Amino acid sequence: MRKFLDDNFLLETKSAQELYHAFAKDLPIIDYHCHLPPKDILNNRVFNSITEAWLEGDHYKWRAMRTNGVDERYCTGDASDQEKFMKWAETVPYTMRNPLYHWTHLELQRYFGIEDILGPDTAEDIYIETNRQLANMSTNAIFEKMKVEVVCTTDDPIDSLEYHQTWTEEGHDLILAPTFRADKVLFTADLKVWNTYIDQLARAAGVEINTYHQLLEALSNRHDFFHSLGCRLSDNGLETLSVEDYTGSEITGIFTKLRGGAVVPEVEAEKYRSAILVELAHMNHAKGWTQQYHLGALRNNNTRMMNKLGLDTGFDSIGDFPLAQQMSKFFDRLDSTDQLAKTIIYNLNPADNALFATMIGNFNDGSTAGKMQFGSGWWFLDQKDGIEQQINALSNMGLLSRFVGMLTDSRSFLSFPRHEYFRRVLCNIFGNDIEKGELPNDLNWIGQIVQQISYYNAKEYFQFHSINTKTTVS
Amino acid sequence: MRKFLDDNFLLETKSAQELYHAFAKDLPIIDYHCHLPPKDILNNRVFNSITEAWLEGDHYKWRAMRTNGVDERYCTGDASDQEKFMKWAETVPYTMRNPLYHWTHLELQRYFGIEDILGPDTAEDIYIETNRQLANMSTNAIFEKMKVEVVCTTDDPIDSLEYHQTWTEEGHDLILAPTFRADKVLFTADLKVWNTYIDQLARAAGVEINTYHQLLEALSNRHDFFHSLGCRLSDNGLETLSVEDYTGSEITGIFTKLRGGAVVPEVEAEKYRSAILVELAHMNHAKGWTQQYHLGALRNNNTRMMNKLGLDTGFDSIGDFPLAQQMSKFFDRLDSTDQLAKTIIYNLNPADNALFATMIGNFNDGSTAGKMQFGSGWWFLDQKDGIEQQINALSNMGLLSRFVGMLTDSRSFLSFPRHEYFRRVLCNIFGNDIEKGELPNDLNWIGQIVQQISYYNAKEYFQFHSINTKTTVS
Amino acid sequence: MRKFLDDNFLLETKSAQELYHAFAKDLPIIDYHCHLPPKDILNNRVFNSITEAWLEGDHYKWRAMRTNGVDERYCTGDASDQEKFMKWAETVPYTMRNPLYHWTHLELQRYFGIEDILGPDTAEDIYIETNRQLANMSTNAIFEKMKVEVVCTTDDPIDSLEYHQTWTEEGHDLILAPTFRADKVLFTADLKVWNTYIDQLARAAGVEINTYHQLLEALSNRHDFFHSLGCRLSDNGLETLSVEDYTGSEITGIFTKLRGGAVVPEVEAEKYRSAILVELAHMNHAKGWTQQYHLGALRNNNTRMMNKLGLDTGFDSIGDFPLAQQMSKFFDRLDSTDQLAKTIIYNLNPADNALFATMIGNFNDGSTAGKMQFGSGWWFLDQKDGIEQQINALSNMGLLSRFVGMLTDSRSFLSFPRHEYFRRVLCNIFGNDIEKGELPNDLNWIGQIVQQISYYNAKEYFQFHSINTKTTVS
Repeated sequence: MRKFLDDNFLLETKSAQELYHAFAKDLPIIDYHCHLPPKDILNNRVFNSITEAWLEGDHYKWRAMRTNGVDERYCTGDASDQEKFMKWAETVPYTMRNPLYHWTHLELQRYFGIEDILGPDTAEDIYIETNRQLANMSTNAIFEKMKVEVVCTTDDPIDSLEYHQTWTEEGHDLILAPTFRADKVLFTADLKVWNTYIDQLARAAGVEINTYHQLLEALSNRHDFFHSLGCRLSDNGLETLSVEDYTGSEITGIFTKLRGGAVVPEVEAEKYRSAILVELAHMNHAKGWTQQYHLGALRNNNTRMMNKLGLDTGFDSIGDFPLAQQMSKFFDRLDSTDQLAKTIIYNLNPADNALFATMIGNFNDGSTAGKMQFGSGWWFLDQKDGIEQQINALSNMGLLSRFVGMLTDSRSFLSFPRHEYFRRVLCNIFGNDIEKGELPNDLNWIGQIVQQISYYNAKEYFQFHSINTKTTVS
Repeated sequence: MRKFLDDNFLLETKSAQELYHAFAKDLPIIDYHCHLPPKDILNNRVFNSITEAWLEGDHYKWRAMRTNGVDERYCTGDASDQEKFMKWAETVPYTMRNPLYHWTHLELQRYFGIEDILGPDTAEDIYIETNRQLANMSTNAIFEKMKVEVVCTTDDPIDSLEYHQTWTEEGHDLILAPTFRADKVLFTADLKVWNTYIDQLARAAGVEINTYHQLLEALSNRHDFFHSLGCRLSDNGLETLSVEDYTGSEITGIFTKLRGGAVVPEVEAEKYRSAILVELAHMNHAKGWTQQYHLGALRNNNTRMMNKLGLDTGFDSIGDFPLAQQMSKFFDRLDSTDQLAKTIIYNLNPADNALFATMIGNFNDGSTAGKMQFGSGWWFLDQKDGIEQQINALSNMGLLSRFVGMLTDSRSFLSFPRHEYFRRVLCNIFGNDIEKGELPNDLNWIGQIVQQISYYNAKEYFQFHSINTKTTVS
Repeated sequence: MRKFLDDNFLLETKSAQELYHAFAKDLPIIDYHCHLPPKDILNNRVFNSITEAWLEGDHYKWRAMRTNGVDERYCTGDASDQEKFMKWAETVPYTMRNPLYHWTHLELQRYFGIEDILGPDTAEDIYIETNRQLANMSTNAIFEKMKVEVVCTTDDPIDSLEYHQTWTEEGHDLILAPTFRADKVLFTADLKVWNTYIDQLARAAGVEINTYHQLLEALSNRHDFFHSLGCRLSDNGLETLSVEDYTGSEITGIFTKLRGGAVVPEVEAEKYRSAILVELAHMNHAKGWTQQYHLGALRNNNTRMMNKLGLDTGFDSIGDFPLAQQMSKFFDRLDSTDQLAKTIIYNLNPADNALFATMIGNFNDGSTAGKMQFGSGWWFLDQKDGIEQQINALSNMGLLSRFVGMLTDSRSFLSFPRHEYFRRVLCNIFGNDIEKGELPNDLNWIGQIVQQISYYNAKEYFQFHSINTKTTVS
């Protein structure tokens, strides 16, 4: 019988324990994809309560609370911080076997040194103690405590990046880099919203946008600007990839119609999206960036709650879109002119793990080790089973050794123990293989691979470490 | 080395053993979805032979026998009971690792106290001994022995429910409730068959059905009648959910054409099905019922055997229909007017586990704990791996603690040990987590959750226990 | 801690060890589907270097090397044998957890008695030693060492089969049988290529092909000829099965257009493919052959590399085509006239395992034990996890005991240890079940089942052993 959440949590074998403690544990964190607010980082925010730090914007927890029969008032509503925390504390014992149970107690241990189990009986003490500690725990202190070396936020091309700029000018050790996520350029379903967005983009880029050519110019300006502030990754969150065939003149005409507010047939909208995706990918390739595609989510399924609470409030689920042929066509289109950037693909449906793990092999051409990456377990898959399944699929169908590893993908400053969680799962997998005689008992070599997946592969692959130097010099 | 099928069968750890024996083992059974014949229950049927009890209507066993090279004569044909049993006994040793192997020996132990392994060498003795015991083992005796508290049969709106009615009037301890399954209203592919069915429905409801409005009136009458006899669940078995947009006048027109025997375009048939599904769901919501959807089966694939043996004779398989968008649209449509009843969704393709486990979260609004349920491993998935995978997906993506648990979904009175099987698998999963330190060693709390999933959640969720009282009073 | 790749490799329990060593280990190999070149077999080829034996045509290894950042020159290019081997040796330590790591070291042990781990430090010694041994290791010696009893190559209807013919005339113990794979008859996308192929087929069959009827005659001639040289299996490698409805006169007309070089609408091409698939299946049934369908691969995704290196060079991946309805319709079409031959279906997407495992049950009619087979883990799935998942799905949804087991599907003479690998995984699964008490501790019976799956089921099912006798007599 093992103690819950002790030093060897998730480490089932001696080999796993040695791999984790001797090799993985003390490495810094490169968090190359997250949703932390840059403003909070620059302002070195201090949280008024654990409720602010834990429940503000965390739709994972809201979703569990709703499933547990908790009224919306205590999730996103006007209940007090303490009331909300108490409702969360009531829910925690019912989250057993859900990753929230592990995340919650790992965060209590790592940030606050609290080893108690959260529940109605311990809630008040924990509320008081965490709040007390939070008064002295700014975001900078958190970064230092968790050895965070790089944070990549997720940003719209129209963002001013003022916080990133000031941060870089202030010369911190932590690298704070933006990520270029131009999804809204693609969303033509509501043309009024889309045209307003294009107006904002025009202003941000300092150009007029009346033609498709001007749109590309604006995007390119912003892409340059993001790069100048250390951006080295792009991202797109899409149900599927658009891969219609198109000609330049077609797109010019379609764009003019859309810009004039005219609804176009679906096939034309799809041609437009196909063209934009290619243009953005070419920009990424030209600058040596890494591009990320998050594919297959079915979002905002609950209209009643969306009207009440807005987008991204915990009503999303896993889709079952066909993805193989689109990915093949899209990456082939880019590769055919040798303009395929380093790329990470993330799937939301675990049934697609094998599909994704084999797709990357089609476009690894030997130019860079691990050029194409099958991204770590994302969103609903960011738990032990999901992480193991991604690692196993990647192992079986590609080279795990070249994997760039974990990211938090989180809105919360308290999520960094997910890197620890991932490293433990990784060490446990290797440890089991060693103990079973399915891998040689060569801890030096396997320890080195563990370190590469935990840290060095990402460092090498993304090349963030030239950023601060360069941008402060220029 | 563990003994086969001993007291700790499937319970790999001490914690699992304690959870099962101290918490789960002795709870009653609520079998909220099965296909037992109400006539047999009312008549307190005694089986003439183990062949009648085991092989009559059991297409799982026929399918295994055919795969093993057994002629149809011994499955559904005119061979004697003894001949059929001997062929089944020959097949059993070849079913190792198939759930039939476990079910068969668990049933021999639990019902007959027989610990022998069934095979050609033991077949004759077992045939004689089980038949001897069956002479004194009526269905009532079985219910008592297995501590069955509630049985929900599966019934067509046109059924008279005479057996349910008499049973309730007789005032038994066992609650026997019907389930409203109106699939045939949707099946317009053969209009002659469909119109005959609508005629029967009209007679059962005591109304004429010439218009769509009258159809709804008839369904509503029958829904009321089912409710008066304790029905608290509906069910639909569908390849996919129909979610076409439609207007009232469209449906009125389409129905009139169908009722006149006129073939309509597929899109109109789909509109009709979409409307009916919504109307039925509204009735379920209005009465506080739980609605079940069994999705994704590809049925009756073998035309030659269907022509020979009829429907549902063991020639069905797992489909790969896209299901996410339909489910999202259907439940959203119901939820948008706050008319979404408590709902259980069952998938047949295990590749869809994650999809289903996340879909329910979109419509849990905090009004009831576990309002939306991801149903237990169904049909081909009703075995250790399938049950574990469903439990793991639900754990990772929802709240296992709020799960309403197991059901037999069976035609056989000998299937109740499936509840035991499920409870063992459940305890084993929790036990492993505890022993690995992935859950706290808190057997009281986890034992309580095990009890809830095994029995109390279902009791609370379905609210059967008001039925007998109410219906005998009224 | 277990030693890497010792005698009990992959055998986690005592029961598994006994099953493997006492029952499975010493059985001969029936390799009923592979891609070995018959010319090499007839010529009793001796390899000039381990590079020739290992890296010539092995796109699995090329793919891993590219992912590891190795330039194409060392994969398929003009680098020397020694240079290529060194690059492969550099890559091997990075393939940990990929099946290549296990295959590589298993082959070093079984063929060369080398227990060292391949890597940059051991590469030179291993290169010298393997080359030294290869000078005395002809293909015949390999077959003998590995106890290979039957080899079925994969051949086009236009092949002369001259090597098979001579081999049979020479009267070897090893049965060398061709397999009829008529995929190219279906590929009408490039009509010039297709018409050239039809011309070749006409010449091979000694008939003119101007009409559809003549095409069938030519195919039938070649089918007869293949049968006369011991062919007992056909194969098709397809994205999906074509199942359009068609009439004879439609196909006659469509074929005439295609033969004249006229592009036809996609639906007509699909009708043509549907008809051919049925005709080929009828021929297979008439001769009592076994037909294989490899479904769901998405091939040659990388156009740039395809233009450079040709087809099948390691740029293929797992598709997500819907397959259930087509398979159902296709097999039902054949079964409806009782012309469904023994059939093996192989899926490339492991998400389809359950679907495939249940599809076969629909067409097992009791005429032959295990008539319909769910094929062993194929291509990307040919590793421990993939093999286990296939065995588990088949166990849960069908009869594992009737499985015809493993095949190499390989181009390499060094791949025969895959049978050993499979047998170890199989014994390990049974052993774990026994030790956990999930199966009775009956090693005689389970050992017999292990032997059947490892060897005897295939021997019984395919009936190769009449071939040599018959063909040498005639």
